[in-house]
Amino acid sequence: MAEKAIPFSKEKLEQIIDKFPTPFHIYDEKAIIDYAQKFTKAFSWNSGFKEFYAIKAAPNPFLMKILRNQGFGIDCSSMAELVLAEKMGMRGEEIMFTSNDTPAYEFKKARELGAIINLDDISHIEFLEEHAGLPELLSFRYNPGNLKEGNLIIGHPEEAKYGFTREQMFEGYKTLLDKGVKRFGIHTMVASNELDPTYFAETAEILFSLIADLSKELGIHIEFANLGGGIGIPYKPEEKPVDLQVMSAGIREMYEKYIIKNGLEPLKVYFESGRAITGPYGYLVSKVEHIKDTYKKFAGLDACMVNLMRPALYGSYHHITVIGKEGQSLDTMYDVTGSLCENNDKFAIDRKLPELQRGDIIIIHDTGAHGHAMGFNYNSKLRSAELLLHGNGEVTEICRAETMDDLFATLDFSSLGSFSV
Amino acid sequence: MAEKAIPFSKEKLEQIIDKFPTPFHIYDEKAIIDYAQKFTKAFSWNSGFKEFYAIKAAPNPFLMKILRNQGFGIDCSSMAELVLAEKMGMRGEEIMFTSNDTPAYEFKKARELGAIINLDDISHIEFLEEHAGLPELLSFRYNPGNLKEGNLIIGHPEEAKYGFTREQMFEGYKTLLDKGVKRFGIHTMVASNELDPTYFAETAEILFSLIADLSKELGIHIEFANLGGGIGIPYKPEEKPVDLQVMSAGIREMYEKYIIKNGLEPLKVYFESGRAITGPYGYLVSKVEHIKDTYKKFAGLDACMVNLMRPALYGSYHHITVIGKEGQSLDTMYDVTGSLCENNDKFAIDRKLPELQRGDIIIIHDTGAHGHAMGFNYNSKLRSAELLLHGNGEVTEICRAETMDDLFATLDFSSLGSFSV
Repeated sequence: MAEKAIPFSKEKLEQIIDKFPTPFHIYDEKAIIDYAQKFTKAFSWNSGFKEFYAIKAAPNPFLMKILRNQGFGIDCSSMAELVLAEKMGMRGEEIMFTSNDTPAYEFKKARELGAIINLDDISHIEFLEEHAGLPELLSFRYNPGNLKEGNLIIGHPEEAKYGFTREQMFEGYKTLLDKGVKRFGIHTMVASNELDPTYFAETAEILFSLIADLSKELGIHIEFANLGGGIGIPYKPEEKPVDLQVMSAGIREMYEKYIIKNGLEPLKVYFESGRAITGPYGYLVSKVEHIKDTYKKFAGLDACMVNLMRPALYGSYHHITVIGKEGQSLDTMYDVTGSLCENNDKFAIDRKLPELQRGDIIIIHDTGAHGHAMGFNYNSKLRSAELLLHGNGEVTEICRAETMDDLFATLDFSSLGSFSV
Repeated sequence: MAEKAIPFSKEKLEQIIDKFPTPFHIYDEKAIIDYAQKFTKAFSWNSGFKEFYAIKAAPNPFLMKILRNQGFGIDCSSMAELVLAEKMGMRGEEIMFTSNDTPAYEFKKARELGAIINLDDISHIEFLEEHAGLPELLSFRYNPGNLKEGNLIIGHPEEAKYGFTREQMFEGYKTLLDKGVKRFGIHTMVASNELDPTYFAETAEILFSLIADLSKELGIHIEFANLGGGIGIPYKPEEKPVDLQVMSAGIREMYEKYIIKNGLEPLKVYFESGRAITGPYGYLVSKVEHIKDTYKKFAGLDACMVNLMRPALYGSYHHITVIGKEGQSLDTMYDVTGSLCENNDKFAIDRKLPELQRGDIIIIHDTGAHGHAMGFNYNSKLRSAELLLHGNGEVTEICRAETMDDLFATLDFSSLGSFSV
């Protein structure tokens, strides 16, 4: 089996660990920048192209600053994500607000920041108008239902809670026209972690053909098509990343067929990827705390579900490299576990690895998205730090580890004494 | 279908909501005390009986104070749980430390507090000795492997990461004897959320017969048997709670057969239940934020996976009551969803409920264990408050809602300006 690359030597990593105890997440700045540039370049044929980084994947302002410098906007889904954008000085149409089941105060905040608002439901037109007023520009999220087969993670679109039906799209834009909204966008997202580049051309066809139909029937000009996220990453070493050139060419073909041929230019192509942008360039670094040999062999790490929940939540595969043992044969079968009193707390089940010892340094790959971001505090465990490896080899702590004071911040121990039972 | 009881009227709840905005968890103090007393009483035949509340289920010092007042100890699984016990003034053998994949600093803390240490693995004897010294009293966690079929949540014991094999139990106590340890306990936990009361007699038989064998072979006196947790609760309205009398009688029968008959008294029976103690007496109170009608009907709440993760993580059923609509027919099918951009963020799928409107108050039942405790901050959502409903109708906030300052506490925004990209 092919080994997955890591951006540091054993010696370099040991230096980092000397300063920052395991476990921690570390992101490779250079690789993130390289991918961001590749992504943007692949869509250079579209003059208004923009990627809005789905900040939920790794809600860290330092990572966002790097991406903003590459021309990326931010995709926010909640109040605190909007506030994070605000704290970074982001404003207006570099913020995409794609939420669902949205409370009034979030719409107000999005309006205050001048964010592009992407409505999830037809009933939100009135709700937004009532609570925050309608902006000049609005976008709708389209759910094609059984016109499109979803992929494994996102499920069948017609079962998903997101978006408008086709009928509602027509009705919705008509309502916007009646209410004097001037500018229009459109959005869909029907896949998550999809590795087939042709899938995105199908998505584009669905959206671009709908734009043509909307334009014909309502006479509106849609100015952007947000193709969502869903670009997968190769979690398994034998998988290949999505070929951005192939993906882009497929989308361009549909752009020519439906947008150019119908004279509907200009149409800006947007994405709101999270996983593909930072996922492969983040690593969870952990140490083997214990080796256990009962009915199976277990390698217990100093990390747990708190640091990475995807294997427990989705049964996801994350590749594991044992530092300094890359060349050794994978001759021992382990369950690689965390320390929670929770049976699901396993990073890998029946994984063949080199023989492990206490103290071995373990790299869990592809944790740069939905890794640290999804951590909980179950069993009162503390979330770990996030580090950034710069191109010059320096390391910056971009999120400190939680302390017990953080964990107990919402508890008022001072009133415990007078609390009578 | 039978409706599940709730401990407050619509009017009372509206008063509470006036003061504490939804969503929140609310615990019924009186019901928790009643159950604690019933539990203790069911085991009055065993003079040393003690329940150690598995604090991971709801790591709240106010709830723990109530339970401690009922004679309960605390079951800790991590550093911060030990510190929580310490902050409450708990010491010595009212603390059970049942951990796994345990780091040295946790063993040191447990030793410092004089907690009962329950080792998960035979290799931990040496590890504990090296890092914290061996205490006078030690316990081992037994994993019966395929001698016992596990239940659904905990899986097959031989696949589980917990405990010693039978052979290791004999070897382990022998080692303790050699090293001069004087007092011994034993532990197992092979079920989670088990509703069949006879299951616990089987567990007791496994543990008590092992005690008899250990005593015979090694001449040691085991002073307590910790039967773990695993007592289920009726999440579904048609399910029945575990009959404590039946459970206790079954365990007592095994106690007579293996302990009394072999002259191995006294043996203290311990439990470390979490779910059964607070689970049914906690409620997640939420409001319908939006009704959505696309390919299905969706009721979007102001709560989400952040407040309750079990349906998404385990596919668990949690009963839903719509306040003020208890008598109405359940004629409308909904997916009851949260607001995360995460397809799993659903409290119920295809649930028949009365027709819902925006603003309806929703009670999600049985969230008093593994509810608030398992919340994460995905999508940068904030965890909600926990309230305690006293027997006299008063309400105390026992954990405040998180703020954005809490959420951003580990991020250093002040260095963002000078962070060059």
